[in-house]
Amino acid sequence: MIAAVTARLGRHRGVPVGPGDDAAVVLAPDGRVVATTDVLVEGVHFRRDWSSGYDVGRKAAAANLADLEAMGATGTALLVGLVAPAALPVAWALALADGLREEAALVGASVVGGDTVRGDAVVVSVTALGDLAGRVPVLRSGARPGDAVVVAGELGGSAAGLALLARDPCSTGPLVALHRRPTVPYGIGALLAGHGATAMCDVSDGLVVDLLSLCTASGVGVLLDVAALPGVDGADRQQVLHGGEDHALLATVPPGQVAALVRHGMRVVGQVREGGGVTDLSGARLQPAGWQHYG
Amino acid sequence: MIAAVTARLGRHRGVPVGPGDDAAVVLAPDGRVVATTDVLVEGVHFRRDWSSGYDVGRKAAAANLADLEAMGATGTALLVGLVAPAALPVAWALALADGLREEAALVGASVVGGDTVRGDAVVVSVTALGDLAGRVPVLRSGARPGDAVVVAGELGGSAAGLALLARDPCSTGPLVALHRRPTVPYGIGALLAGHGATAMCDVSDGLVVDLLSLCTASGVGVLLDVAALPGVDGADRQQVLHGGEDHALLATVPPGQVAALVRHGMRVVGQVREGGGVTDLSGARLQPAGWQHYG
Repeated sequence: MIAAVTARLGRHRGVPVGPGDDAAVVLAPDGRVVATTDVLVEGVHFRRDWSSGYDVGRKAAAANLADLEAMGATGTALLVGLVAPAALPVAWALALADGLREEAALVGASVVGGDTVRGDAVVVSVTALGDLAGRVPVLRSGARPGDAVVVAGELGGSAAGLALLARDPCSTGPLVALHRRPTVPYGIGALLAGHGATAMCDVSDGLVVDLLSLCTASGVGVLLDVAALPGVDGADRQQVLHGGEDHALLATVPPGQVAALVRHGMRVVGQVREGGGVTDLSGARLQPAGWQHYG
Repeated sequence: MIAAVTARLGRHRGVPVGPGDDAAVVLAPDGRVVATTDVLVEGVHFRRDWSSGYDVGRKAAAANLADLEAMGATGTALLVGLVAPAALPVAWALALADGLREEAALVGASVVGGDTVRGDAVVVSVTALGDLAGRVPVLRSGARPGDAVVVAGELGGSAAGLALLARDPCSTGPLVALHRRPTVPYGIGALLAGHGATAMCDVSDGLVVDLLSLCTASGVGVLLDVAALPGVDGADRQQVLHGGEDHALLATVPPGQVAALVRHGMRVVGQVREGGGVTDLSGARLQPAGWQHYG
């Protein structure tokens, strides 16, 4: 299975040593490497009857590559740890490899290594590496009062698709597709970093949860224009505010950069102010309601 | 739990951005980064009644850092994906973090990121990043007829310790300790690369299995002096030849480098020749008998 998977991974630029040796060698032209790990567990993050191996590969790669975008970096390589029951069809693992490879290719990255072991439930642990190309990494902690809050990408699609699948496992359509394969706004993280974004994260746990995390890290509050949020057609208010796994980008930017970023399709959704917490235009505090493991 | 674990990880040199943001930033002064992933699953790679969280952390870090050594690289950072049952004691996860941190510190590396999710069995997926400091990465495929085969570190300890635990779970002593926490010959991978090693790997699946892998990748055979193998005191022949998880280093080197490497404690155990396979001094072919997942 490992040989068959490896044969499907291909090779891309920036990978002097690919899969098959003790370790891979990946170019890090910046002299720094950006790295993140996300773990997807069957029954928690995906169901094999609702998502194909290909979908899980796309989603696992997207979740990690979005974390790199949120630092202002561009993905260069993925490493994949797969726990597979002995009964897992080899075709599922091959489709997983296809999904990982194709999502990675969207940013010019490739799958350079991994490990496969047996276990009772499917676990897909992905590590993504990225390059900053000289940019300053954008942390969650740099938002300043007066900054504008912008969102790139759409919100609520994954949660709305999941709700449809829960009602009818045979559901189809664009919302279900967004649940299976989030659409990360690739390239926009670097663009935001280049325009002086002061803080940034991706929306993985829900907009309010992630915005509160950014506020706490920065020691600021946010006045949020809920009506301005870029919700997906068909997603309700709760899904837009609290749905996870959309992997949109959420950033704070100096006011002088807003016009340029709007021209690139970003939506202004609020303003950073002194204090803490997230408040809507009516003055009401928004509380976290996103997905919590062990909740 | 994540906050408690993060607080224990500390911070080391070469890590501009540590745990807690969307991704970490790690220095890659060479302009290339070496990366590898290994997954440890409860019930397959460890038992919680035979190994503590601390032991599993040490072992998971060692397995990955040894893969970097085998390329001639030195570890700089670890990322950790943890699948944890809701009933897993927090103390176990904290001890895991301690073990990872302390093993990484042996090479000056640190734990820079990770992800924790719930699941039924404990899975520890570790990715290690390393730096080549300008050295050419040593692959498995470069062995040439006439090269000497050398081993750094000892063989059979992990398998011998495991056999003792299988007979009596209360066993103690140096062999059990080697099973719980392999001793990787840190620094020797870089030394071997600096002395022109033509091929290298770590002994993770058993000496014969890993040596056959190197032979296949290089298109050569090896004449092995079994009596010269650096077996641990108390390990039997089978354990020395076929035991996994010792994480000794196995390399082929040009004959002119042997004297210098022996002065550094390495053992000459054979010679590379034309052909294929591993043959002992009596002319008998050695067959693989190491641990095989799904075997």
